Amino acid sequence: MPVKRSDLFCKKRVGIIGGNFPEEKFLKEAEKMGELIARSGYVLVNGGMGGVMEASARGAHAAAGLVIGILPGKSTEEANPYIDIAIPTGLGYMRNAMVIMNTDVLVAIDGSYGTLSEIAYARIYKKTIFGLNTWDIEGVIHLKDPGEVIERIDALFK
Amino acid sequence: MPVKRSDLFCKKRVGIIGGNFPEEKFLKEAEKMGELIARSGYVLVNGGMGGVMEASARGAHAAAGLVIGILPGKSTEEANPYIDIAIPTGLGYMRNAMVIMNTDVLVAIDGSYGTLSEIAYARIYKKTIFGLNTWDIEGVIHLKDPGEVIERIDALFK
Amino acid sequence: MPVKRSDLFCKKRVGIIGGNFPEEKFLKEAEKMGELIARSGYVLVNGGMGGVMEASARGAHAAAGLVIGILPGKSTEEANPYIDIAIPTGLGYMRNAMVIMNTDVLVAIDGSYGTLSEIAYARIYKKTIFGLNTWDIEGVIHLKDPGEVIERIDALFK
Amino acid sequence: MPVKRSDLFCKKRVGIIGGNFPEEKFLKEAEKMGELIARSGYVLVNGGMGGVMEASARGAHAAAGLVIGILPGKSTEEANPYIDIAIPTGLGYMRNAMVIMNTDVLVAIDGSYGTLSEIAYARIYKKTIFGLNTWDIEGVIHLKDPGEVIERIDALFK
Repeated sequence: MPVKRSDLFCKKRVGIIGGNFPEEKFLKEAEKMGELIARSGYVLVNGGMGGVMEASARGAHAAAGLVIGILPGKSTEEANPYIDIAIPTGLGYMRNAMVIMNTDVLVAIDGSYGTLSEIAYARIYKKTIFGLNTWDIEGVIHLKDPGEVIERIDALFK
Repeated sequence: MPVKRSDLFCKKRVGIIGGNFPEEKFLKEAEKMGELIARSGYVLVNGGMGGVMEASARGAHAAAGLVIGILPGKSTEEANPYIDIAIPTGLGYMRNAMVIMNTDVLVAIDGSYGTLSEIAYARIYKKTIFGLNTWDIEGVIHLKDPGEVIERIDALFK
Repeated sequence: MPVKRSDLFCKKRVGIIGGNFPEEKFLKEAEKMGELIARSGYVLVNGGMGGVMEASARGAHAAAGLVIGILPGKSTEEANPYIDIAIPTGLGYMRNAMVIMNTDVLVAIDGSYGTLSEIAYARIYKKTIFGLNTWDIEGVIHLKDPGEVIERIDALFK
Repeated sequence: MPVKRSDLFCKKRVGIIGGNFPEEKFLKEAEKMGELIARSGYVLVNGGMGGVMEASARGAHAAAGLVIGILPGKSTEEANPYIDIAIPTGLGYMRNAMVIMNTDVLVAIDGSYGTLSEIAYARIYKKTIFGLNTWDIEGVIHLKDPGEVIERIDALFK
């Protein structure tokens, strides 16, 4: 009889990607998105640094969710304060591909060229990607707010 | 006032490195080592695959510990069944360096050339490394059994 | 007196990025672009595989240029037949970032999501990027043909 | 009819690995080894930095050989002055695995833990490795001087 995998292993992972220096309104959107992801019982995965990454982690943290941060540097210390599981990679911006590998579905919020690279990897690795005020790239499913995104994510997994 | 980091973030991480195809007695040692790491409240980090990695994860899992597996491939599915947090890297054997980056202290059990590369990275990244029946490399602190190792680890962190 | 670096080290490197399965007309454009890069005395760098990578390497090769291929896999054997210096990386699609690191300026021709990730990295690493029938991303300087591109590259370096 | 690969592609590559801060006598050995590799018509591959890497590159350079340096950082500028083809990787010490991937056979001279990681990867990737005053690891073929090493390398490839 095969071993049953742990509940934590089996939880779906939602990635949030987005910029380091977004406008205030996008930070609020990221925080709300993180909160909704946690409330729906998903693990939040992001790049572990500032901006949209920190805001979404703060939202998930406040809702008692688990947050994994895939970091560019070699030390857990660079993680924002809301990361539970910090994963240093030493890969710099190449870690962007690993953020995508570590998710089941993605949400892009605002974002600059780092986010664009992650959208590209989401398409390469065939992960569904929802967008809130982000790059208009073929394959990104643009929605209007975090509530609409979580409905679509729940529809995939529940 | 700075944000308090989560309890999970603050837990020390103990890495176990070792071979894919060890003798039975080393698997038992790895399982015991995993159990003791979990009982002491540390997070276990390993390479997420078979042999010493699977045995140590099984031991930690049975003792209700948390196990992070840093995987060589691109999918969480290759993780052994006792991994809670699977981190696919797509790096193949280069992920060995990441296993080391993601630990505070290491235990090497038996092992072949993959383990040797990890011992080398433990020395490069200046992580303390205890050894059980493993490569005799300068800097590895050879001990006689898992009980002795956990005492030394507790002495570092408690 | 500092050592003079070799002529080969000092040559500028032009990267060509683009799809594995482009239409015939883009292959012709890539071949012409490779030829012009070689004739102008630059080293051509690309991802070493098929499609635009192979066509541009063929063009540079025919014009007696040097071609470096930064490969996704672990063996030089996967390189297309026009690569002079094959660099296996074992990084899969993460090697896309390395292609960009290894160039002074980029030309994007057609291309899908792999190319999009490379355009993003070109912007992250602040490399000038010219485009021929490629993604319409802010920062890409769209030009009409290889002749126009080589004029712009020569203007940068000569 | 398959395309004939270029002469440069077909040249065998000999890797030299060794420490950043060796004793003078090991630098002389590295320089001699680089010279012999170039004289025998092989491409020299190393990590592109100082110590044994620089000395061996100097030796190969003086004998009109071609030297590839696989660099830890993101810029060609960090290469030692005798490198012809600098390959920045952005991988830090993880690039050690890539040095090994990029060679047909290895020579280890002296060296510390970085060299030890490279010896381990040489064994993982099943590359023959000759040693001069280096780590005593199972599988390393210890020889007495560069002349003896080049004889053994020539025996493999000629």
